[in-house]
Amino acid sequence: MKLGYLGPAGTYSEEAAYDYSPDSEMVSYPSIPTVIAAVEKREIDQCVVPIENSLHGAITDVLDFLVRTDSIMIAGELAVPIDHCLMAKAGTEIADMTMVYSHPQSLGQSRRYLESTLSHVEAVASLSNAQAVIDMQESDTVSGAIAPRRAAEIYGAEVLAESVQDNPNNYTRFVVLDDTDRPPTGNDMTSVAFQFSEDEPGLLYRALGVLTENSINMVKIESRPTGERLGRYTFLLDMELHRADPIGRETIDKLTEMSSWFKVFGSYPRMEELPIRV
Amino acid sequence: MKLGYLGPAGTYSEEAAYDYSPDSEMVSYPSIPTVIAAVEKREIDQCVVPIENSLHGAITDVLDFLVRTDSIMIAGELAVPIDHCLMAKAGTEIADMTMVYSHPQSLGQSRRYLESTLSHVEAVASLSNAQAVIDMQESDTVSGAIAPRRAAEIYGAEVLAESVQDNPNNYTRFVVLDDTDRPPTGNDMTSVAFQFSEDEPGLLYRALGVLTENSINMVKIESRPTGERLGRYTFLLDMELHRADPIGRETIDKLTEMSSWFKVFGSYPRMEELPIRV
Repeated sequence: MKLGYLGPAGTYSEEAAYDYSPDSEMVSYPSIPTVIAAVEKREIDQCVVPIENSLHGAITDVLDFLVRTDSIMIAGELAVPIDHCLMAKAGTEIADMTMVYSHPQSLGQSRRYLESTLSHVEAVASLSNAQAVIDMQESDTVSGAIAPRRAAEIYGAEVLAESVQDNPNNYTRFVVLDDTDRPPTGNDMTSVAFQFSEDEPGLLYRALGVLTENSINMVKIESRPTGERLGRYTFLLDMELHRADPIGRETIDKLTEMSSWFKVFGSYPRMEELPIRV
Repeated sequence: MKLGYLGPAGTYSEEAAYDYSPDSEMVSYPSIPTVIAAVEKREIDQCVVPIENSLHGAITDVLDFLVRTDSIMIAGELAVPIDHCLMAKAGTEIADMTMVYSHPQSLGQSRRYLESTLSHVEAVASLSNAQAVIDMQESDTVSGAIAPRRAAEIYGAEVLAESVQDNPNNYTRFVVLDDTDRPPTGNDMTSVAFQFSEDEPGLLYRALGVLTENSINMVKIESRPTGERLGRYTFLLDMELHRADPIGRETIDKLTEMSSWFKVFGSYPRMEELPIRV
């Protein structure tokens, strides 16, 4: 089986792909749209993409892509702990560093470490955590990179410090995308999206009422702009049901009827609860 | 009056600050946390920060900061059209360009232009749109930058193309932060945030029911991770009411009672509806 991920090698996305299916043939893509398009064209069987981080919230590029595409479904979910390391060329001393490369989000997640240990160092944006290690390797100045441990192994850097992120409970939830979703297991999640044609107060309230009537747990609600104008949203719900179960079918029929546009992203086995790290 | 914004000069945030109060003394800060902290310390009277984009949704750093701070309130809102230009050193030809700098979000917003006109050019991330113009000026290679027109004026670059963003209805909504909010005007917005202590199904539904009972229009709902673990959220609502009006007081009392944590970000005059550009 061919499994795509957001490359280059050494990103958390690659780690998620290995966790999900270690025996697959891994294929790296340069962006979220290209990896999803590769599934749509069946160049690869599935892909693993990040959808939500426990500190930063939704990966909105992926949500927006799911809203637009018609041929892709969520077939699974998994969570990966985010553990940033400071790395550099072998023999580098932190005191001599003048620059540190990372993706802007990872810099933001490591603010306390940057302000304490790396206060003498200039933070520089890279396009990904793995690219940061390449940028560091190619830099003429004494520099470091903040990236996953795996990137140090792949690109031959030395790890100078581990777990430099501010919050130990930093997890990213990934979804597996395929051309179909999965049959019921008894412990499933369904992700849907919908829009209303009018701004009438109470439409979202009535939609959530359908879940409450059936004692369905809503795990997540998100609003995304439709792109038409400020103030128009697509709502995205994750709920504990399977769309092929009788109560799932009934719920989805009612939600479809209430909304001007409705879409099921997929039904898939729910992942296990995560441990809390202190 | 001293008005802070997210610098450097030449960003859309600076433009918003001028639109809001052209006669203020403008003070540039390097990040969202530092500009908000400057208001908290009363180094400046107010600041203008982006909170939502019509294509990309919430500026989550700002929402998360509002959740954490106790001394800052939303005192106003305004929208600024986002119009990206391609700029370069005087005399540069697009055909000779090898690199184009911009903030990753602006690169994402200009994907079609990058894929058509700039397909021969490597896209490089900068920390802000204005920094992209500085990076371009300092680059040894023939390069360009995607940034607001004002950045070309400030940093002495030549505009080669206008409106290179994919979607013409690209607006960013900014909020004005101060140590107090504003008195009722008859057309006001109130922004609040709340959490529930349990995952019990239907808690959010019951909260939205308070708005529906009183025919209050909910303009926006957003969920942000609490940072404790995946699946725990702070909900943020924008609703058409003023917290000092009788119905506003009643609504806020009821929501406070239902939630384990509740906070008013502020009541402020609502901005005018925006024109749709085609």
